[in-house]
Amino acid sequence: MLVNGKHYRTVWMEKGIVKLINQPLLPHKFEIYECRNHTDTAKAISTMVVRGAGAIGSAGGFGMAQAVLESASDKYVEKARERLKNTRPTAQNLFYSIDRVYSAFLNEANKSNVGIRAFEEANTIADEDAAACRKIAEIGSSLIEHKARILTHCNAGWLAFTDWGSALSPVFYAKREGKDPFVWVDETRPRLQGARLTAWELKEENIRYAIIADNAAGYFISRGEVDLIIVGSDRIARNGDVANKIGTYEKAVLAYENGIPFYVSAPTATIDWTCNEGRDIPIEERSEEEVLYVRGRDNSGKISAVQIAPNGSTACNPAFDVTPAKYITGIITERGLLKPEELGRILPDKI
Amino acid sequence: MLVNGKHYRTVWMEKGIVKLINQPLLPHKFEIYECRNHTDTAKAISTMVVRGAGAIGSAGGFGMAQAVLESASDKYVEKARERLKNTRPTAQNLFYSIDRVYSAFLNEANKSNVGIRAFEEANTIADEDAAACRKIAEIGSSLIEHKARILTHCNAGWLAFTDWGSALSPVFYAKREGKDPFVWVDETRPRLQGARLTAWELKEENIRYAIIADNAAGYFISRGEVDLIIVGSDRIARNGDVANKIGTYEKAVLAYENGIPFYVSAPTATIDWTCNEGRDIPIEERSEEEVLYVRGRDNSGKISAVQIAPNGSTACNPAFDVTPAKYITGIITERGLLKPEELGRILPDKI
Repeated sequence: MLVNGKHYRTVWMEKGIVKLINQPLLPHKFEIYECRNHTDTAKAISTMVVRGAGAIGSAGGFGMAQAVLESASDKYVEKARERLKNTRPTAQNLFYSIDRVYSAFLNEANKSNVGIRAFEEANTIADEDAAACRKIAEIGSSLIEHKARILTHCNAGWLAFTDWGSALSPVFYAKREGKDPFVWVDETRPRLQGARLTAWELKEENIRYAIIADNAAGYFISRGEVDLIIVGSDRIARNGDVANKIGTYEKAVLAYENGIPFYVSAPTATIDWTCNEGRDIPIEERSEEEVLYVRGRDNSGKISAVQIAPNGSTACNPAFDVTPAKYITGIITERGLLKPEELGRILPDKI
Repeated sequence: MLVNGKHYRTVWMEKGIVKLINQPLLPHKFEIYECRNHTDTAKAISTMVVRGAGAIGSAGGFGMAQAVLESASDKYVEKARERLKNTRPTAQNLFYSIDRVYSAFLNEANKSNVGIRAFEEANTIADEDAAACRKIAEIGSSLIEHKARILTHCNAGWLAFTDWGSALSPVFYAKREGKDPFVWVDETRPRLQGARLTAWELKEENIRYAIIADNAAGYFISRGEVDLIIVGSDRIARNGDVANKIGTYEKAVLAYENGIPFYVSAPTATIDWTCNEGRDIPIEERSEEEVLYVRGRDNSGKISAVQIAPNGSTACNPAFDVTPAKYITGIITERGLLKPEELGRILPDKI
């Protein structure tokens, strides 16, 4: 998508260097972060310089390609794979990409060719992610009427993928089709991806939005001011249960109770066919500092943190929750709009 | 309650000056704010130097007493009454107190005595608020088992009242009875009364707690890690619908969906007998700055704000929501634990 008129992807690789839009600096500063080797890339994933299901998928794939380019020894590549997999526990796309590049490495008979082969595979994954999101945009836009009011949680826009995004891509597409959507943006504590990233993306695309405290979503839903909810996903179980940013479950229950549709938007790479149900999805616990401090731009223009709670306070900080399939109206994928119980229809042959 | 071993109320009046614990500075700094006249007091209420249903009730009563002491002319006092009533639109206790002091002023035949009479009435209201909360503590504690895990939203502790509090007073009481309660503290965006004030009160009383992003409440509820929810209220309609801090409705729906009890704790002064149902309660819209900026202690120790959203963003900031009676297990009042539909049992004679 465009940043000040220039097209960017969230993640790409150039001359062995993985380049990322530095997301913690947004919306205050737009900067490209460079990862010179696979350990840099792993660190960028674990510290959330890059975040979002598809974006960390692509970053993980490129990180694997860097490892293969660094040394084609089985032991080295296997160790790099472990390191990259251990960066974040919940997002399925990360494991999907790492394993695909790893398989490409293993299956390449010509050992002098493994580096370029791994790089090509990582690039293909990134291209597929962007193409799937573009397709989701089109399919999802059919659910959006003129002047529809859409609530979204966290950021599942293009910054969360290689390009286009999952939950926001239908909104971008609807806008380009001449509809005039309005987005309620959950700020999404603790890391404020809604207030920081979703708002920034919508602003760049000239789409109307209002940021709300996560607490206010139920208020607007109950007053009939939300027509539909669209969120992304970090992992989808075979039975249609969906892991996504903490707070998603709350919005789904509120939608259900108030009779408004709740859609999950995700490329099929997000489906974990080895995971039978939501309770099997590991939920990442992140640092309590994310709750006890808030980062933003101070009045000198610097990005800094303020402490909000008393010294010595404890916080608990699960990064994701699981929304049971029963609360989900439909899952928007590049293969079509599916009911959660219909996922089996697109089960890959190899499973 | 105690602050560093010394007993304080949230609001009191001394030699014509209304004194308040300066709540925006907490938990970082404990300071007493002085209001020299009724316009100072009105400003302290509207800018939330003092906040919380019972605390602004007491402050409003003392503000009326100041006005009567300033000038006993009917016109002056009537104008002060309007000014004080216009500070905040939702909390019932504010109107209750202002009208009681105003009636005392009107009904005092001896005009040279109106100042002291108004002051006495304001003091009585503050004492009654503290006594009601103390009674609520005792009644509510019977709902708390040893090692119970209680979730609360916003701050309905002693800082929100004259003393003791409504939602937290049963927890304080349970602790003093030797039970060992644990509190899940919703941080309560946008103004973070949970992370700032509830956490501070619990810490001062040596009660175990963990602060969570508001988004995480549903996660812990769905995993069976919350035994009951207790919240306060700013206004209760005759049919048992409850207005309280934005986000309360979300927690109530989640409790209902997961089969855990949801209690509202409030002195009967919070009941608006002239209000038939929740939809009649006016909801205050506050500044969008409260959403777009977060205040806290910066690394130099000063309290300052950081901007979290892109320049030029719009935010919507309703301060309260209404929880329909059907989601409420019981209302804990100083007159006993009532079901929402049983409120009529304590209807005052004069209504």
